[in-house]
Amino acid sequence: MLEERLVEALGHDAVKTAPEDLAAYAFDAYSDGALPDAVVLPASTRDVSAVARIASDLGVPIVARGAGTGLCGGAVPAKGGIVVSFARMNRILELDVRNRRARVQSGVVNLDLSRAALSGGLFYAPDPSSQKVSTIGGNIATNAGGPHCLSYGTTVNHVLGLEIVDSAGGVFETKLDEPGYDLTAAFVGSEGTLGIVTSAWVRLMQLPESVRVWVAAFGTVEAASEAVSAIVGAGIVPTALEMMDAVITKAVEAAFGAGYPTDAGAVLLIESAGFDDDMDAYEAAIRAIAERYGALSWRTARTQAERDALWAGRKGAAAATGRIAPNYYTQDVCVPRSKLPEALRAVEAAAARYDLTVGNVFHAGDGNLHPLLMYDKSDARQIAAVIETGNTILQAAVDLGGTISGEHGVGYEKREAMTRVYSTADLAAMARVRDVFDPTRSLNPDKIFPKGLRCPEVAPPA
Amino acid sequence: MLEERLVEALGHDAVKTAPEDLAAYAFDAYSDGALPDAVVLPASTRDVSAVARIASDLGVPIVARGAGTGLCGGAVPAKGGIVVSFARMNRILELDVRNRRARVQSGVVNLDLSRAALSGGLFYAPDPSSQKVSTIGGNIATNAGGPHCLSYGTTVNHVLGLEIVDSAGGVFETKLDEPGYDLTAAFVGSEGTLGIVTSAWVRLMQLPESVRVWVAAFGTVEAASEAVSAIVGAGIVPTALEMMDAVITKAVEAAFGAGYPTDAGAVLLIESAGFDDDMDAYEAAIRAIAERYGALSWRTARTQAERDALWAGRKGAAAATGRIAPNYYTQDVCVPRSKLPEALRAVEAAAARYDLTVGNVFHAGDGNLHPLLMYDKSDARQIAAVIETGNTILQAAVDLGGTISGEHGVGYEKREAMTRVYSTADLAAMARVRDVFDPTRSLNPDKIFPKGLRCPEVAPPA
Repeated sequence: MLEERLVEALGHDAVKTAPEDLAAYAFDAYSDGALPDAVVLPASTRDVSAVARIASDLGVPIVARGAGTGLCGGAVPAKGGIVVSFARMNRILELDVRNRRARVQSGVVNLDLSRAALSGGLFYAPDPSSQKVSTIGGNIATNAGGPHCLSYGTTVNHVLGLEIVDSAGGVFETKLDEPGYDLTAAFVGSEGTLGIVTSAWVRLMQLPESVRVWVAAFGTVEAASEAVSAIVGAGIVPTALEMMDAVITKAVEAAFGAGYPTDAGAVLLIESAGFDDDMDAYEAAIRAIAERYGALSWRTARTQAERDALWAGRKGAAAATGRIAPNYYTQDVCVPRSKLPEALRAVEAAAARYDLTVGNVFHAGDGNLHPLLMYDKSDARQIAAVIETGNTILQAAVDLGGTISGEHGVGYEKREAMTRVYSTADLAAMARVRDVFDPTRSLNPDKIFPKGLRCPEVAPPA
Repeated sequence: MLEERLVEALGHDAVKTAPEDLAAYAFDAYSDGALPDAVVLPASTRDVSAVARIASDLGVPIVARGAGTGLCGGAVPAKGGIVVSFARMNRILELDVRNRRARVQSGVVNLDLSRAALSGGLFYAPDPSSQKVSTIGGNIATNAGGPHCLSYGTTVNHVLGLEIVDSAGGVFETKLDEPGYDLTAAFVGSEGTLGIVTSAWVRLMQLPESVRVWVAAFGTVEAASEAVSAIVGAGIVPTALEMMDAVITKAVEAAFGAGYPTDAGAVLLIESAGFDDDMDAYEAAIRAIAERYGALSWRTARTQAERDALWAGRKGAAAATGRIAPNYYTQDVCVPRSKLPEALRAVEAAAARYDLTVGNVFHAGDGNLHPLLMYDKSDARQIAAVIETGNTILQAAVDLGGTISGEHGVGYEKREAMTRVYSTADLAAMARVRDVFDPTRSLNPDKIFPKGLRCPEVAPPA
């Protein structure tokens, strides 16, 4: 019945129900979820609307999916239903260079947008490490960050308006910079639980006149952390300020030969962008602070190729850990910048307690940690150790005044942890908003909200 | 009954029902509204919560009010009820210099926050012309802008989290930079229709090392508009870029002797802030563009006193028009920057058709026009002319691809105009959000939403 109605609305070609097709959509970069009942590949907003109406009629859940690079199970079904893939809705509908904005379908790949904007001297700023494959729609669902969100902000700061299909198939738009309620921000980061974003107006930024990239090596992650705090504290905001520890730089150099020193306890990758005339002053100011905090070496990337190699190494860091262990788990937590040394000590202690190798590669300027826990998933003991270590790190971040996710989202993995940062009343306010757009909880069910949230406040007041 | 219950909860001193007290709360800077049934002056979130519960029990509307400087009737009752004044909730609860943020009660006056932050080298960026008296709570309700929102953004870009009392008296918080739905932006600019904001975490910014202010005179507003477009188009974003026409500069100089040339068709007030070393380059770049577009003169304010005088003149411009006519009406519309010359011609034509004097003083860099229409409210013909002219300007802005409000809000005045920029489905999405937080529509009723919005979609789906 479900399949028949979907085929009737979208055509045979756009509906997949063969077991081998469904299996591919039970995974994202987190782990396995449940098999969907059907996968659809809509070509238009009208198609998405038709799917939502059918799902609503039949009481079937919907999970929207971009490229499936999410790290917390946000894009896989928790309990069957329809997966809506945006693979065919990948067109840039409008590139408005003069007003520095673009309208894109949800399936446009992040980096493709920046490539298209290049001819107009523009780029799309949010740059998650997955940007070569992840989509604008997926980035919107998770409010994706990236190394450059230190100075440019996360996805929510770059979305100007959304076209949304609600759970009953209705279509509406949100617009920033217009009077009335600003609902755009509520949808960005809502992980497909409030509505299905079909297209977006996004902000494009002017390419800077000049970009410089530096690498500073330190004896310890503590020393590098102190330097990070001091740089930002001095009122200098580099466009990126990334840290990698020795475990990571060794793996990155073995994999890519990117140009990082492998004999340091930690390296900082620092980027500044702006007017050419300002670059020497930026370098002098940042370098002076780095040296005050014990930098062992300072290197300037001399060419575009050198800069690209350093960034490729940084963005490929997680993949490079394949040389250390067959599997890795990425935790994603935030702490106040001033608490970085303490947080890193807690990470190290937790990994040591469970006998795991940990590598740290993260957005230091934002206090956004990404400890990579190395393991072998064929060993049940190691899996248990990873889960315990991940939880210990999560709680340590909360105890230090931080939070449970920096940029990867909540998804299925961290829904229970939401109670560590929100009161029941705060969560109920969110749930009430969900109830108006998705009263039957059929959009990406069992995500974000803790299973235990069954208080009376969750129901909309009568 | 209402009075008794309010007095019981808040004490005699915090409840006003004498006719002379109520009369003062039937006005804001727009015009007269309806008399409230009672005015309360809560001292705490608990008081506000108690008032909401009483209002809910008795089915009485609530209108939250800051300093009453709003220009579209947002802070006055449309049909009686309780006005909640935040005059007593005016404490800065926490000034966190290290993390550059503050927690303030809603009644804190905008400028008082910047004054308090000064000792830490910080300031609060949104600076509406009313900042000497308007409150953070009122600024949040209207998502207030100001001259500096060109580079710093409006209020929504500076609010990190809110404490909110809902229409049933429940208290909850929203938090930016936390996972889950980002509801903060939905509440900012919702004009007291979604909940009553009792306190807010706001961002503070570091005072720049150096600030320069320049005045460029032009023969016509068209020439000045072209220069504005070219400056921003060149990738230069001054911290402020304000325009005043000859009607306004003459009034300002007569009132304040601020230092503006009175023989020019238009003047631009331009401010840049940043590192001292960069200022000469900024000046050279901006001045070169101004001169390319026909600037007749260029002056640099040499001292802090000169800069303060120029800003005081700009911010006092509306008041200065008292020298031209006993009353003025401020329209607030936006157009794309490139359409400024056309928009200004439309303003002039509309005023001429109805025989009104119009002065233009506005945030040119944002394309945010504020035509001031001069009139005498004792003359019914002139009142009718102002209404017609205001409507004509509003429609002209929409026709040029702009919108019905830049920063003053919708309130009572512009609710019917919302249909000019939103579809019924878009408005219904907003109304559905309202229904969860304020199902009885008792928070600031008859504001923002057009009276005609009675489509089935407005009801929350069953």
